[in-house]
Amino acid sequence: MDCIFCRIAAGSIPATKVYEDTHTLAFMDINPVALGHCPVIPKTHVATLFEADAALLAQVMGTVHKLALALKSTLGVEALNLLQNNGRAAFQSVDHLHFHLIPRQDGDGLGFGWRLKPGDLEQIQAAAAKIKGGI
Amino acid sequence: MDCIFCRIAAGSIPATKVYEDTHTLAFMDINPVALGHCPVIPKTHVATLFEADAALLAQVMGTVHKLALALKSTLGVEALNLLQNNGRAAFQSVDHLHFHLIPRQDGDGLGFGWRLKPGDLEQIQAAAAKIKGGI
Repeated sequence: MDCIFCRIAAGSIPATKVYEDTHTLAFMDINPVALGHCPVIPKTHVATLFEADAALLAQVMGTVHKLALALKSTLGVEALNLLQNNGRAAFQSVDHLHFHLIPRQDGDGLGFGWRLKPGDLEQIQAAAAKIKGGI
Repeated sequence: MDCIFCRIAAGSIPATKVYEDTHTLAFMDINPVALGHCPVIPKTHVATLFEADAALLAQVMGTVHKLALALKSTLGVEALNLLQNNGRAAFQSVDHLHFHLIPRQDGDGLGFGWRLKPGDLEQIQAAAAKIKGGI
């Protein structure tokens, strides 16, 4: 088993687990972006959102929600980014589906703000037509 | 109704919708970070992840998954960030729960990479104990 998150789920390498149920696991990130930073994973190996199915995503999001409420009630977290990366170009670091819960504070310097600028409406409409046709 | 996303869901202001079902809606962002950038929202007004419930999150994630597959099959999207912001400090811009699907490409310059550095294990363990006690 080469996947580090599968090995954490199987208990063959240690992690500071904060929640576990039949299908999902949440543990403390050892390279936390902020205190309380937890990945939430399915125990089943699924590489990305593309390979997941709706039932598994519902299970994972149930755990994400439990963790968000626990971060609020225990660490006083009032602001939070939920980030899930797919593919190297999106900065996915471990090829096992995971959702990062990242507590935020004013002025924490982490960024993620985007420079908002109006898009090219014609290009947007053309992309929308393609996407609609693919669902 | 002051919420811009509730107004989009109600059809009282226009949007380029790409998917809609009973509970959820996906539309093109008019300030796209990348081509194909779509927010997915529940039609019911829920401000943040904290106020959501598991059933609503499952519905929204079902639509997120449909959109991810459609972005891949129609626009050739191979890498994707899923980002959901809660609170001003986390750069939430509209106070209605939304998940951003952001297509990524190598060298697109958007960032989101974090400087990974080992955390303080004692501090992490103490936070973990608190969080566990709050679930």
